[in-house]
Amino acid sequence: MRIAIDAMGGDNAPECNVEGALAAAAEWKDTHIILVGDESKIGPLLSKNGGQVPSNISVQHAGEVIGPEDEPVKAVRRKKDASMVVAGRMLKEKEADAMISAGNTGALMTTGLLVVGRMEGIERPALAPMIPTLDGAGVLALDLGANMDAKPEHLAQYALMGSLYRQKVMRVERPRVGLLNVGTEPGKGNELTKHTFPLLEQMPIHFVGNVEARDIMSGNCDVLVCDGFAGNILLKSIEGTAGALFKLLKEQFSQNLKSKLGAAILMPQLRGLKDKLDYKEHGGAPLLGLSGLVVKSHGSADGNAIKNSVRQARIAIENQLVESISNEISGKRVTI
Amino acid sequence: MRIAIDAMGGDNAPECNVEGALAAAAEWKDTHIILVGDESKIGPLLSKNGGQVPSNISVQHAGEVIGPEDEPVKAVRRKKDASMVVAGRMLKEKEADAMISAGNTGALMTTGLLVVGRMEGIERPALAPMIPTLDGAGVLALDLGANMDAKPEHLAQYALMGSLYRQKVMRVERPRVGLLNVGTEPGKGNELTKHTFPLLEQMPIHFVGNVEARDIMSGNCDVLVCDGFAGNILLKSIEGTAGALFKLLKEQFSQNLKSKLGAAILMPQLRGLKDKLDYKEHGGAPLLGLSGLVVKSHGSADGNAIKNSVRQARIAIENQLVESISNEISGKRVTI
Repeated sequence: MRIAIDAMGGDNAPECNVEGALAAAAEWKDTHIILVGDESKIGPLLSKNGGQVPSNISVQHAGEVIGPEDEPVKAVRRKKDASMVVAGRMLKEKEADAMISAGNTGALMTTGLLVVGRMEGIERPALAPMIPTLDGAGVLALDLGANMDAKPEHLAQYALMGSLYRQKVMRVERPRVGLLNVGTEPGKGNELTKHTFPLLEQMPIHFVGNVEARDIMSGNCDVLVCDGFAGNILLKSIEGTAGALFKLLKEQFSQNLKSKLGAAILMPQLRGLKDKLDYKEHGGAPLLGLSGLVVKSHGSADGNAIKNSVRQARIAIENQLVESISNEISGKRVTI
Repeated sequence: MRIAIDAMGGDNAPECNVEGALAAAAEWKDTHIILVGDESKIGPLLSKNGGQVPSNISVQHAGEVIGPEDEPVKAVRRKKDASMVVAGRMLKEKEADAMISAGNTGALMTTGLLVVGRMEGIERPALAPMIPTLDGAGVLALDLGANMDAKPEHLAQYALMGSLYRQKVMRVERPRVGLLNVGTEPGKGNELTKHTFPLLEQMPIHFVGNVEARDIMSGNCDVLVCDGFAGNILLKSIEGTAGALFKLLKEQFSQNLKSKLGAAILMPQLRGLKDKLDYKEHGGAPLLGLSGLVVKSHGSADGNAIKNSVRQARIAIENQLVESISNEISGKRVTI
């Protein structure tokens, strides 16, 4: 299988992307990695330890870069030779089986829509990252920002796509799908969730009903369905609260000698706790509902995170994720 | 001034309500407290220490109670002699200047709408609790659940009402009003926030723009405007994350003797931290946009929380909060 990596995307590009590609190529000999970006920058990094470039890595030159400040739609339309856009085109033209990028999220979603293209029957693709839970298993949440004003039908498609992803790529046998809402009773919510609830009851998924934001971290579902606006509020509230708490802990623990001593004893535990809550640890987020597999790595991804995204992409390709979603959406159910 | 307390509302009713009423009556001699509820239960509690009932406390008998499981609209319509409904009627008929309840939130909002009545010019009243911030000042957030499908005009009215409340009751001179959104740039968000932004720019408030969920706890605004659905997701995510973190901390700290020692040293700091994040500590939440002042105390309020709600109600009455909002809404701006 062939996986295209946007070598110029992310805060640590191109170094981390090349590093991740080298690690992935060494581990999975059956996988061909195509690094897309500025050849003059990628080349020296590939051979910097005087080593030979592995035979399962190649470089596809792309002269432009979409930066974090670029306006997504404008950038994707104008920078036709941007590394992200070229990787998207390779996916579209079946020169790659998946693409990975740690670059500008909005631009990647636009690349998905305008370059890779929607899957037939899907109205709105969805970005599906993992939200950390106390048990470490995480919740796949979608949509997390691709689609701000969703309709009930969109949420029903998210449910199906998320359930298949969780099943095929993350090996959860019968994923519990929950609907993010303000109360657990079926009649609760706004117009969107009230109309989505009966649709989810009819889907070929294991729908467990409404889930409240306060219970997400207890891990009471495997897939969480929400519109992009609510999903963003949820994810960023969790991030903000955890960040604020760690800041407060740090302040309180350095107040005096006694608390400093206590903190020193507890430091290993605290670090473990922080890692547990770091959603970057959960790897890349798939962009579901496109005609090809696109994985978004976190902007601050390091080489290891890129390698993890390759791992995810490999499992998705092996298990024919995109084909399965397409079959479910078009009604031709496949045996899993 | 006369303040009606729904003596039968809340998890610890009627004890905590009577206790709070006694404490408030002792502190503010100019305030007359009317305890509304079952006379046979309130009477003995009022004189349980063999003391005389203070002259600034009276009891208004009400034979029914709305419980936490009652369906709000049905309960308010049918239980005409419920303590909450009777207190609402006293407010409506100017027999009280404010009412306080720790009972069923949905039923209290319904009592506000159907019994007390909306203020002229207000389409949707809003529930406005405080969200804790790192600096301890808190953010007044509205709406938090009264109105699930808000329109831009509703959010504009929330902004005005929240700003006035923060100014008059909480003494913030020039409250910074933020709009809860998925990014800080003016063009960000869903249809609701995109259309609300220009309206807020035109309001007689200090609008500081969009605010992301992750920055709320840093205290970058004094008033946060959002629809009831997003507000619920925000508040419950904060609550859930803080709860999950404290649970994890507790687990990690009891892992072995060394960590137990560290935890014992740090316990006072940890407790302080938990209190800081406890939004119950911030007192009652006003229900703004009604023709009279209604304050919602937390369901698990104790005597002290009820007394704090009386304090808030007193300040609001002294500063003519309801009249000020009414004047602003009807265009007759008053000098503050």
